[in-house]
Amino acid sequence: MEGYPSMSLPSFPPAVLRGFEFRFSGEKLLSASRRWQFFAAWKTHHRKMKNQAPAPQTVLYQPPILKGFLRNSSEFNYGVEAWEAYKRGSLSKDLIEEQKKVQEADLLIFQFPLYWFSMPAIMKGWMDRVLVQGFAHEFPNCYDSGLLKNKLALFSFTTGGSEEMYAKGGISGDIRYLLWPMQHGIMHFCGVKVLAPHICFAPEYVSEEKRKEMLIAWAQRLKTLWKEEPINCSPDWYFK
Amino acid sequence: MEGYPSMSLPSFPPAVLRGFEFRFSGEKLLSASRRWQFFAAWKTHHRKMKNQAPAPQTVLYQPPILKGFLRNSSEFNYGVEAWEAYKRGSLSKDLIEEQKKVQEADLLIFQFPLYWFSMPAIMKGWMDRVLVQGFAHEFPNCYDSGLLKNKLALFSFTTGGSEEMYAKGGISGDIRYLLWPMQHGIMHFCGVKVLAPHICFAPEYVSEEKRKEMLIAWAQRLKTLWKEEPINCSPDWYFK
Repeated sequence: MEGYPSMSLPSFPPAVLRGFEFRFSGEKLLSASRRWQFFAAWKTHHRKMKNQAPAPQTVLYQPPILKGFLRNSSEFNYGVEAWEAYKRGSLSKDLIEEQKKVQEADLLIFQFPLYWFSMPAIMKGWMDRVLVQGFAHEFPNCYDSGLLKNKLALFSFTTGGSEEMYAKGGISGDIRYLLWPMQHGIMHFCGVKVLAPHICFAPEYVSEEKRKEMLIAWAQRLKTLWKEEPINCSPDWYFK
Repeated sequence: MEGYPSMSLPSFPPAVLRGFEFRFSGEKLLSASRRWQFFAAWKTHHRKMKNQAPAPQTVLYQPPILKGFLRNSSEFNYGVEAWEAYKRGSLSKDLIEEQKKVQEADLLIFQFPLYWFSMPAIMKGWMDRVLVQGFAHEFPNCYDSGLLKNKLALFSFTTGGSEEMYAKGGISGDIRYLLWPMQHGIMHFCGVKVLAPHICFAPEYVSEEKRKEMLIAWAQRLKTLWKEEPINCSPDWYFK
């Protein structure tokens, strides 16, 4: 991060401070655009921002979600099998570990590059595998009464397209349209409240100066993140 | 498919008939809900619907997208590396094969279960890896002038939630909100025109009778699919 402003994470009272970071990237992306893979990570206590964290390899492979036998192999139902495995403690080890991290966290920050108007497949795989029924939701406990209802989430991402392209009348449409499936469909469904997204538009195409400003702005925001109110996660916020 | 209406694919004039099927599922989902993984597959000539097709394993792993050396390994840029690899013919073998199938097809039918308000990770991985710059788009050739501009696509999927939940005022919001990133953000971006989606709501929770009706309706639709006009893929279709 030569030439980049050094940032140490702001101090938070340890009591509130069990944020958790998820960091996703395709293949070797980490080694590559690590300049933009920056961001804050806290757990139990704040820790120093690292330049590079290990990629969650397990997510890359979408391995089986459970160990042992299926409940019903002739009429396989992914959701039900995962749910049952959760209840009997036989989910795959990596999922149990991921769920523990989520459980311990007050705030989930998802940092990722926007791929094809959504999260990269590897991150979607994390959602598909980790947010199992019984753990994250269990009908009728969804949306406001979702099982992760005392947590916050923040989607922080970089785009390829410019802010103009992602404006309301822009060719790619309002960026908020893209946030609905992620923020409402996943996080809100699990009861998680959502902070306003943090978006760095087209870092690849702006000046070095502008990129530094982006980093500084993020560092600034982190300092007062805990004072922020969640958005009102209803269609109005996304489509009005 | 015991007890289900037998369906043979309608005959199309061979000239127009180079549709291509993509079939996605998580892990063992195929063996499982194959009843709902039904759908039509054509290539060059129509072929009989198969009860079960091999899962595209390669997509499961998100393996490297190219063979040989990176153009710039110290400042890795996923998009640029894939683009360059495409141009010099050094994309991974599985991607080249997938691209060939796309190239030969007039119509792409994506059949999948809706996972977390979007496509399953494995299918997103296909999008992320296969629709490489140079092959599917190349600025300024995107949207209406995207490189796949003489093709059609159709998203056919099953949901967990009911039609009421996915109605405009419903708790999960209008189902069309979810189609924007997939239909507009991916297909339209590549120049592909989109036919109206085919949605089977909550097959898991409806009667056997209703499920049969769903299959029959799909079979019926397939008979006249080639006469359909694409939707007007603009914000109005999704958000009005």
